[in-house]
Amino acid sequence: MTAERDPAPGSSPGAAQPRPSSTNAFRLERGGPASPRAGLLTTGHGVVRTPAFMPVGTAGSVKGLAPDEIRAAGTQILLANTYHLMLRPGAELVRELGGLHAFMGWDGAILTDSGGYQMVSLKERVRISEEGVEFRSHLDGHLEFLSPERAMEIQADLGPDVAVTLDHAVPLPAPAADVRDGAERTLRWTERSLARAASLTTPTGLPQLHFAIVQGGGDPALRGEMAARTAAFPCDGFALGGLSLGETKAETWASARGANEALPADRPRYLMGMGTPEDLLDGIASGVDLFDCVLPTRNARNGMAFTSEGTLNIRNAAHARSPLPLDPRCGCAACARFTRAYLRHLHQAGEILAHRMLTLHNVTFYQTLMKEAREAIDRGAFDVYEREFRRRYRARRDDASPPEAQE
Amino acid sequence: MTAERDPAPGSSPGAAQPRPSSTNAFRLERGGPASPRAGLLTTGHGVVRTPAFMPVGTAGSVKGLAPDEIRAAGTQILLANTYHLMLRPGAELVRELGGLHAFMGWDGAILTDSGGYQMVSLKERVRISEEGVEFRSHLDGHLEFLSPERAMEIQADLGPDVAVTLDHAVPLPAPAADVRDGAERTLRWTERSLARAASLTTPTGLPQLHFAIVQGGGDPALRGEMAARTAAFPCDGFALGGLSLGETKAETWASARGANEALPADRPRYLMGMGTPEDLLDGIASGVDLFDCVLPTRNARNGMAFTSEGTLNIRNAAHARSPLPLDPRCGCAACARFTRAYLRHLHQAGEILAHRMLTLHNVTFYQTLMKEAREAIDRGAFDVYEREFRRRYRARRDDASPPEAQE
Repeated sequence: MTAERDPAPGSSPGAAQPRPSSTNAFRLERGGPASPRAGLLTTGHGVVRTPAFMPVGTAGSVKGLAPDEIRAAGTQILLANTYHLMLRPGAELVRELGGLHAFMGWDGAILTDSGGYQMVSLKERVRISEEGVEFRSHLDGHLEFLSPERAMEIQADLGPDVAVTLDHAVPLPAPAADVRDGAERTLRWTERSLARAASLTTPTGLPQLHFAIVQGGGDPALRGEMAARTAAFPCDGFALGGLSLGETKAETWASARGANEALPADRPRYLMGMGTPEDLLDGIASGVDLFDCVLPTRNARNGMAFTSEGTLNIRNAAHARSPLPLDPRCGCAACARFTRAYLRHLHQAGEILAHRMLTLHNVTFYQTLMKEAREAIDRGAFDVYEREFRRRYRARRDDASPPEAQE
Repeated sequence: MTAERDPAPGSSPGAAQPRPSSTNAFRLERGGPASPRAGLLTTGHGVVRTPAFMPVGTAGSVKGLAPDEIRAAGTQILLANTYHLMLRPGAELVRELGGLHAFMGWDGAILTDSGGYQMVSLKERVRISEEGVEFRSHLDGHLEFLSPERAMEIQADLGPDVAVTLDHAVPLPAPAADVRDGAERTLRWTERSLARAASLTTPTGLPQLHFAIVQGGGDPALRGEMAARTAAFPCDGFALGGLSLGETKAETWASARGANEALPADRPRYLMGMGTPEDLLDGIASGVDLFDCVLPTRNARNGMAFTSEGTLNIRNAAHARSPLPLDPRCGCAACARFTRAYLRHLHQAGEILAHRMLTLHNVTFYQTLMKEAREAIDRGAFDVYEREFRRRYRARRDDASPPEAQE
């Protein structure tokens, strides 16, 4: 950031220097601000080795999987959606029942988003003002209001290990002034979010980490500025929001890199809501520590499996008599037990077991990728690993690349 | 049977005496023809302790459950549907992939029905003649033909441990002459089925047992006659078909008892497609060894759990904040892990995990009931067990009794 720009709102002039995390929950073991990194994120529910992928448990369930399966797939941390849980079953109910971990029977770490992204996706059902976001529930149309303060109150009730501040994402393409307005508002909301969070407690009394969202559209310079100004807050980590919302892939990675270069190396960075296996590698290469995406779970229900040789669509007639597992390189229970022929039959018959098994496989595939990438970073060989993975992964492709997806 | 009646078709005059099973796969340990019985049915995939309940795996999957869960619920034998599997994925494909056990990854016993019942439920899509049943696939409308011979050929390809002969069930109420015609045709089809089955082999080469269906509507005398005439066939067991198709409950049990009294005590009897937990007790009391029903699985997907204190509808608002498991007396993984509040939330949100967990619980409940009934029979105390079960089971009921269901 430059001297001409406003400092982070509410901070005294000259105070916009990176401040240390309030909790020192993250330890960087390898890498710098915008290069492949290996770290340890200590939470109230275990240590998360980064880079890490968070499967999406929108409504408090990673669709189709039981907690022991999520764990067996290699998951250390999962994501749940504030927006969905505040509407159903309601945050007060979750608090009353001991918080989200107890509610869903998951003893690993949890991160909740703040609901900001869902606001964008609701479009005409939403009215945004400086105070917050008024929206209509997609379930029954009743009016709800989410302010930065309320977003943190709800997340305190839910009790995840990591809560995220409320942001104002601007779908692209958009005029530069709108993108800046959204990013500036996000800074103001970050301050309000963190101020409110400071006095809240979780249902278990365990500490909650707070990540602040960096906005700024597809402009690397604006991203860098916003990252530097966000770094002035005493938050425990950062989230890169509003990417993969209409900009080109080149803009995505330039923006992510622009942000990461301006963020302090000793705090974790979470790239929200993307992407493909190749995106994860690009993200790691640009300095990202945490990822989430619905692709492995949603696409599983549509019959798509991720394999070491590329994507596979189980609906294809080519698999009708195949005695092979989804991926001969995979050690998941679906690959140990079932042939492509059987899984194709189950999918065609609409059987729940098909969704379960493809989901289990895909989440295992993503987690194995992250584990291998982590090991490659540890031994200083991420480039080699990435090149080899991409070479193999392009060998086959049953159908077009999956669309970007975010819930 | 009386001397005036026709002998079993194709048998020589005077030959209509019970013949021994060709395999002696069943050993009766306790009980008589129409009283609570304990037995052992030896199959190519393990010994089944009877009385036993077969969860329904219509299309080669007990909806929502993986094989290890079906086993953990206490299942020794499951049922799959010839009609569904012949249409999709096709019996030849299943044979090519090693048979149904290998295909679905289930190493316990399997029984397939013959497809006769589905013919009844297709109604206007079906044309029955002496030769067999012409019908249109519910999947794509193409014409199929199922004769007694082809029903056994398909089941040989599928390779279950127990195959069932083709029958002609008549939905009630129906004129007495129609009921008798269906029952007489069933006898003729039984002979043709068994004759064809004698020269068939399974994909694994393991032996296949053959059960013959007894028809006769809701008339105990006709049932008794048909049972006696069916007993003249050298089959390995019997199936009571066409019950719970419109007659009263009193007629159901009088007919079942009428058939069982006329069947040889040393061969197993399977009551097709019913019922509630209380039906199972009535069935056991009247001498039935094997049961199947879609109630525990289908009703699970509708939110109904069977508990030791009666049925529970997880949709009810009363469970919204309940920290209790579905059934505090149950040891299944769903009851060990999850509260009613969470399962209700998952069900309301349409989450697959709700269907999985209620299915796992219900199948466990049914299997526990059968195990306890077996133990009570072993110690000569079935009456006491039944009385106590019914007393407790009536204590609560969230909603009306479930409808009879059959797939």
